[in-house]
Amino acid sequence: MTRLLNDPNDFPEEARLGLVAAHRDKLMAVPGGVIRSTRSEAGTVAVVIGGGSGHYPAFAGLVGQGLAHGAVMGNLFTSPSAQQVYSVAKAADNGGGVLLSFGNYAGDVLHFGRARERLIAEGIPCEIVTITDDVASASLVEFDKRRGIAGDLTVFKAAAAAAEAGATLDAVVAVARETNRRTRSFGVAFDGCTLPGAEDALFHVPAGKMAIGLGIHGEPGISEADVPTANGLAEMLVKRLLDEVPEGIEPHGARVVPILNGLGTVKYEELFVVYRRVDELLREAGLRIVEPEVGELVTSLDMAGVSLTLLWLDDEIARCWMAPADAPAFRKGSVRPAEAIDPAEVESVGQLGVPPASAASKELACGVVAALDALAAIVDENAAELGRIDAVAGDGDHGIGMQRGSKAGLKAARDVHSAGAGAGTVLRRAAECWSDQAGGTSGAIWGVILTSIGEALGDEDSLSAEHLAAGVAAASDNVMNFGKAKPGDKTLVDVLVPFAECLSASVAAGESVGTAWERASRRAQKAAEATADLLPRVGRARPLAEKSLGTPDAGAISLAIIVRALVPVLEHCE
Amino acid sequence: MTRLLNDPNDFPEEARLGLVAAHRDKLMAVPGGVIRSTRSEAGTVAVVIGGGSGHYPAFAGLVGQGLAHGAVMGNLFTSPSAQQVYSVAKAADNGGGVLLSFGNYAGDVLHFGRARERLIAEGIPCEIVTITDDVASASLVEFDKRRGIAGDLTVFKAAAAAAEAGATLDAVVAVARETNRRTRSFGVAFDGCTLPGAEDALFHVPAGKMAIGLGIHGEPGISEADVPTANGLAEMLVKRLLDEVPEGIEPHGARVVPILNGLGTVKYEELFVVYRRVDELLREAGLRIVEPEVGELVTSLDMAGVSLTLLWLDDEIARCWMAPADAPAFRKGSVRPAEAIDPAEVESVGQLGVPPASAASKELACGVVAALDALAAIVDENAAELGRIDAVAGDGDHGIGMQRGSKAGLKAARDVHSAGAGAGTVLRRAAECWSDQAGGTSGAIWGVILTSIGEALGDEDSLSAEHLAAGVAAASDNVMNFGKAKPGDKTLVDVLVPFAECLSASVAAGESVGTAWERASRRAQKAAEATADLLPRVGRARPLAEKSLGTPDAGAISLAIIVRALVPVLEHCE
Repeated sequence: MTRLLNDPNDFPEEARLGLVAAHRDKLMAVPGGVIRSTRSEAGTVAVVIGGGSGHYPAFAGLVGQGLAHGAVMGNLFTSPSAQQVYSVAKAADNGGGVLLSFGNYAGDVLHFGRARERLIAEGIPCEIVTITDDVASASLVEFDKRRGIAGDLTVFKAAAAAAEAGATLDAVVAVARETNRRTRSFGVAFDGCTLPGAEDALFHVPAGKMAIGLGIHGEPGISEADVPTANGLAEMLVKRLLDEVPEGIEPHGARVVPILNGLGTVKYEELFVVYRRVDELLREAGLRIVEPEVGELVTSLDMAGVSLTLLWLDDEIARCWMAPADAPAFRKGSVRPAEAIDPAEVESVGQLGVPPASAASKELACGVVAALDALAAIVDENAAELGRIDAVAGDGDHGIGMQRGSKAGLKAARDVHSAGAGAGTVLRRAAECWSDQAGGTSGAIWGVILTSIGEALGDEDSLSAEHLAAGVAAASDNVMNFGKAKPGDKTLVDVLVPFAECLSASVAAGESVGTAWERASRRAQKAAEATADLLPRVGRARPLAEKSLGTPDAGAISLAIIVRALVPVLEHCE
Repeated sequence: MTRLLNDPNDFPEEARLGLVAAHRDKLMAVPGGVIRSTRSEAGTVAVVIGGGSGHYPAFAGLVGQGLAHGAVMGNLFTSPSAQQVYSVAKAADNGGGVLLSFGNYAGDVLHFGRARERLIAEGIPCEIVTITDDVASASLVEFDKRRGIAGDLTVFKAAAAAAEAGATLDAVVAVARETNRRTRSFGVAFDGCTLPGAEDALFHVPAGKMAIGLGIHGEPGISEADVPTANGLAEMLVKRLLDEVPEGIEPHGARVVPILNGLGTVKYEELFVVYRRVDELLREAGLRIVEPEVGELVTSLDMAGVSLTLLWLDDEIARCWMAPADAPAFRKGSVRPAEAIDPAEVESVGQLGVPPASAASKELACGVVAALDALAAIVDENAAELGRIDAVAGDGDHGIGMQRGSKAGLKAARDVHSAGAGAGTVLRRAAECWSDQAGGTSGAIWGVILTSIGEALGDEDSLSAEHLAAGVAAASDNVMNFGKAKPGDKTLVDVLVPFAECLSASVAAGESVGTAWERASRRAQKAAEATADLLPRVGRARPLAEKSLGTPDAGAISLAIIVRALVPVLEHCE
């Protein structure tokens, strides 16, 4: 929803002024909209675009050298008036005539049409090209009745590049018309947007459903379907557009510009996940992809939706698409032309061999794998609860991270163990993969713990209580040194330190591995309970920075659970 | 929420591949993240940035000539592993050493730190600069404990520009540290984001409230407050940042870069509305604004939030900030340097005088103003209902548009009437302002209606039934000609045509203005009811293109209401 506003009636005008304030180097406010604040070549055609507000970067974010000369800015989702169009076009005119271009909506057609009559009456040559890219809005037979959605951009860009290159008004119109003829878009919506000050969205789509054939003014789609996977959506969008290749184009080997457009709240990462598959599908269809765009190019406030546009290039339109441009929200053409690198050059990093190991250590490695297996199982069992605990003071991902890490560690341990590694190497390799796959603080710390123990065990000896206790003690020291957390900071250290101390003391007192570990695990349990008791005191009031320093309490608790679960494995090792 | 995904576990990796597919001219995938796909100057420092995924454009969208050399991409909101950092840094190294820079989070500090040790061990000089811009995360005394949020960008940009200019690793580190020292951010959140595959957001903020001091990993804020106006928010953010000017800087006359950052679902228009006031406040404080940024620069998936960053420039950092850059999501430096235009040059459009009028027509203009007054009142009274009706088949803005138009028309009529205009001019001026302020199809059509009647009445004569009937008949013809709608298309024409015909017939039969108008208004009422009866048949199945062609039914209904409300005014005119 739209939350930040003053008087809702002032919203479009205040947005216009803020836009200009943020881009004084490119934009200037004039009655009815904005024009370039930089000088254009005298005698060139001025490309004036526009429509209702609420679609940024369309339309005012597309004004600048190499793109539009001016944008008329109507009220939210409302066509501008003829007076606004006239005013902006008059201010943008460079003496070469004016092309008015906009999406095909009745209100826009009326107002831009009236402004055109007035401009012509004053001796300014003026032509209109409406954009009709939305395949869902009418059948191909009624191509001229289709709406304009994200395909607006291709027509604006091509027309503006032609104008910038000095083409006559007729030639600019011809490029714009041909670009429109070669542009197709298809979109879906997951939820509607809310106008500033309105209490609810213009429309809703039931949860888990999507409206097929979205409109950018909050018009619902033509039919509903379940939300597919990202790949499924990519397939649906590509199929519909490949079903309607513009007349006269042989698809195989054709050059296309794909534009994957987010309407407002389908975010970048989601768009990239969908685009990954779009890219594959277009290549599989034998198309050559030219300078694609993935992002928010024509929005509808905070509408949740996505559309795919294909522009089928010819030589002239390809040149126009690739020409440089410098608008607030669309820039092309590198300021630092730089040579492309051959990927084969880039050094591939870190292939590791398996160092030699004694038979005794290979035997011990078996026990290590069993321990990591038990560890992964207990983490799996408690993952949801660990996530819940972590959500109190942290970001709730401790359970997921531990799961990912312990599984990756176990897999790596099994792989390297079956390749003949000793106990030390198995633990070190498990540590690397755990840390690599889990990421986060707990991933790093478990990497340190396993590495420390692995180094103490080595690849030569069988299990000794002294080596194990020394490894755990080293782990305790290294984690403190590494994470800069001290006992009492309410982190995993609060459990690891007493556990390591108890284990060393028990071993020094002559206890067996199993007995000492069991005793130390009870000590760890108590320490974790003490930490857990602090939980109710943690909450919103806690300073934020503290939250992100040190492992959260969930880390202390998971450590205690894990050492406890390892008791039978250690007893079995004896 | 995040809707478009395949297996949630694959989400970050698929997003990475899609990003690279969309930007092959700039990015290349390497294990652990991305590097530039273009050659960098040999021997220059490589700036490697990174952190968890989910923050696009941070971090991978900031890789390219003039900006970062590589970005390490951890799992969602999770620090990358040391192995990932090492791998990306090794691939990005140009022989001049590596700067690792990232927001100050424990996990990142650990993993980047371990990678640094490994790089140094291999003979690659490597330094770390953590970013600590978030004033809400710790007090100034604990500056080093603060988190990094949107201020990341200033440090990356300055360090990269220094590296690009050939600075040594030590010099790049110095620029990065000084930029961090001069950067402050402060943010608020309105709602949390949802991880792909999760059932609910990481946190929620109660409706109408905002969390002050947002975290970009879904951490809730340090306190809650009511959502203020856009201006109120601008004032809060600016005040907090001006309360903490970095040491050694005299604020008056200082140069600052403001960055107003949206976290994902606070959209561009809202950001511009807030920025309008930020710009004012910074100027009022005597600051000089340099190349601001307003947009989505560091996001958290679909989190609703906004932050303001100020970078306090010195000469060197100013040069670094303004240097050209060409990354997927951040480009600076014009490809078409163009002269700035003096705003005074731009022709101001359309100042109109008041044409002379007879006393009789001035008298009649009084009645016209009274009629427009009654019209605006009846529209006001019915605006909500008209919006509701319009929402069935249109976009629900008919009520608001009619309100805006009729008010603007009335105001213009009063102004020009008090300047001595006749009835025709009053109606024509009201028509222009109505159309200009209301926009949309209905704005244009009411412009045509009032202009047509105004032309029939002229600025000479007193009221005659014939002139009025001729004006309404002309309005009916002009609207049909203009809007291309015919009777039966279920638009305002379905009411206007029978109204005009009835009025003409009654006047021709010798009825007085008041009587004829009253009879015609009853005819209009019936016609509107017939149109309204069709409403239940309109719905989702209706082709989309049709919806945007022709005035929606609400237009027919509002016309009928209006002509009815004018009966007493017309009767009084006699």
